[in-house]
Amino acid sequence: MTKMAIMGYGVVGGGVHDIVKKNADTIREKIGEELEVKYILDIRDFDNHPDKHLFVKDADIIANDSEVTLVTEAMGGATFAYEYTKKMLMAGKSVVTSNKELVSKKGTELFRLAEENGVSYMFEASVGGGIPIIRPLVNCLAANHIQSIYGIMNGTTNYILTKMFKENQSFEDALSDAQKLGYAEADPTADVEGYDTMRKISILTSLASGNELDDDKIPREGITKITAEDVACAESMNSGVKLIGYSKVEDGKITARVCPMIIPEDCPLYSVEDVFNAILVNGDMVGDVMMYGRGAGKEATASAIVGDLMDVVRHKGKFDKNFSWEGEKNNVFFNPEDEENVFFVRCDASKDEVIKVFGNVEFTEGFEGAFVTEKMTEKAFSEKVEALGGVLSKIRVYK
Amino acid sequence: MTKMAIMGYGVVGGGVHDIVKKNADTIREKIGEELEVKYILDIRDFDNHPDKHLFVKDADIIANDSEVTLVTEAMGGATFAYEYTKKMLMAGKSVVTSNKELVSKKGTELFRLAEENGVSYMFEASVGGGIPIIRPLVNCLAANHIQSIYGIMNGTTNYILTKMFKENQSFEDALSDAQKLGYAEADPTADVEGYDTMRKISILTSLASGNELDDDKIPREGITKITAEDVACAESMNSGVKLIGYSKVEDGKITARVCPMIIPEDCPLYSVEDVFNAILVNGDMVGDVMMYGRGAGKEATASAIVGDLMDVVRHKGKFDKNFSWEGEKNNVFFNPEDEENVFFVRCDASKDEVIKVFGNVEFTEGFEGAFVTEKMTEKAFSEKVEALGGVLSKIRVYK
Repeated sequence: MTKMAIMGYGVVGGGVHDIVKKNADTIREKIGEELEVKYILDIRDFDNHPDKHLFVKDADIIANDSEVTLVTEAMGGATFAYEYTKKMLMAGKSVVTSNKELVSKKGTELFRLAEENGVSYMFEASVGGGIPIIRPLVNCLAANHIQSIYGIMNGTTNYILTKMFKENQSFEDALSDAQKLGYAEADPTADVEGYDTMRKISILTSLASGNELDDDKIPREGITKITAEDVACAESMNSGVKLIGYSKVEDGKITARVCPMIIPEDCPLYSVEDVFNAILVNGDMVGDVMMYGRGAGKEATASAIVGDLMDVVRHKGKFDKNFSWEGEKNNVFFNPEDEENVFFVRCDASKDEVIKVFGNVEFTEGFEGAFVTEKMTEKAFSEKVEALGGVLSKIRVYK
Repeated sequence: MTKMAIMGYGVVGGGVHDIVKKNADTIREKIGEELEVKYILDIRDFDNHPDKHLFVKDADIIANDSEVTLVTEAMGGATFAYEYTKKMLMAGKSVVTSNKELVSKKGTELFRLAEENGVSYMFEASVGGGIPIIRPLVNCLAANHIQSIYGIMNGTTNYILTKMFKENQSFEDALSDAQKLGYAEADPTADVEGYDTMRKISILTSLASGNELDDDKIPREGITKITAEDVACAESMNSGVKLIGYSKVEDGKITARVCPMIIPEDCPLYSVEDVFNAILVNGDMVGDVMMYGRGAGKEATASAIVGDLMDVVRHKGKFDKNFSWEGEKNNVFFNPEDEENVFFVRCDASKDEVIKVFGNVEFTEGFEGAFVTEKMTEKAFSEKVEALGGVLSKIRVYK
């Protein structure tokens, strides 16, 4: 029997507890032993909970109990979760998490700590909720050089953009709907400004390249400036607008970015709607593969965590270097200003002015001042936008 | 260093050899040692091949060389491949394959043999080419009871059906195009009659359930009877026609089937076009997840094989029971006649006759004699078709 603890009894922690109980039969069958929750750590009181005897408020009780070899961290954030994760790893316990903020900020250190203590730190649930992505990237595509990763990794913003696309809603109305349905939080900043997506693309890129990519080095734009008119322009080009976290290898260096993108209908990301997520990975041997599903939600996220827990039990907690990365090396990442992109633009300038500044562009039929540029560096594009005296909208175009 | 052999130097075997050489850097980095091809087994002569010294014609040379611990079987078929795979497993070598026919027909026996000899028999490449599917099913979704699997798992038929859908071609013309492009073989039976898809859904279902599902027990229909008119009817219902291999759990029992299906546009399988494959898995906790990509091709398939090879090296060839299934148990599979489905029908009968026999149906606007039934058992449907004196087309409707 393996005894485990759950740190943080919110939505995800509760979900893990539920699955471990509800699917105990299939878990036992697959790992060859029982998986039992011995402790649940939470600062709140759960006096009326049927399993109230499991609740503790002191992490040391777990850390000092040698019977417990496995811990789920479902606290979120990078302060207490960071301290407690370190404590558990140093006490020789494997830790499984869905905490994208902690993994993206402190992964390098926590992997090293796990390795030193001969245990695992696993995080399949930190990207794409229940969608298999970490393991496919590490194992199934192991023979590939990963060339690019493009992901719709935030359900809230995808729901909002889908509403804007299908019902011609404004950003504000769509956000308000999402909040009413519980898809967006009262303070939606982490989602709509792209912080959540930034953490996820940071994790995937660090993992695929083996080198830490600092969140702060990822240029980030949210979707708050996207207007119904932008979406209508995209639609007229048989395309949609999605919030994308991407990274790609160019000239041996890696670029990463979070921004809204015009996605043409022949890209498999185009038909990913509502709260669904999808991650499109290109490997030099396999070409494009995409993993799709519900990127959030109690049971989906908990499903990925329990999958990791089972894997840790099967591999007796042994650290696997492939599920980690090392500290940032020099010259691995590209200067974002030098990255080349194609841009969609909406502006007040006349056709003549646009052509004078941007040269050869493709005007969007039926929309005044809307056009798509040729491929150019981010730097050149910024200069041209300035020369035009600013623009109403600028959105990068996929590939 | 790990020394390996490749059995069969066709498209896939050649692809494995290429990747092991081309991506040697990333392979070494990830498995911590060199992976070297010591032998290539093929009955043909390769006297002008730059690596001609590797070629052997006698499998015993490989079996008897204790330096070789890992073998790729890329011969295809279930005769020599079966004998040689047994020989290698019994000689204590792990075997990795893309041979769906062998895995689906002889998997149970070969897994047992691998377990007895303390080695692995891995087959990620046998379903969906380079698309990650076996490992996501076994590891990432391990905490779930798998409720259903619906897959577009044959690129040839999907290409043909896409042509019929987009260009209103007949089946014969689309097949002929596919043959010209090398997507279909001169004898297309294995693809268009659904044998290939049958083997793949057999493997996934056996793996998800832990019980062998005999290929012969899977009712199978190909796409040769699908007409341009059927496809037009589907289109008018905002749906497409796809060749689907599926299995689902109903009342605790498993049903599996291969048949063309009407797929509505809100199903993520709808937008899977051309030679692409996708597998939609529903787990009780995670909901729907889909894995998408190129389901065939030299490099994609070889990419999945090399991923398995690397995993075997990392786990020192140790047998993992979760990547296997046991012999068929009683009462696991449902009687196909009792399975309930919704059917699309085209017939010569009048509306009155249709209503008299089928009761409440939904007629397809703009197409005479075309309608969709209510949910009914396969048996009841067959009886009604007979009562109607036969029909022109009958296609099951997704969900």
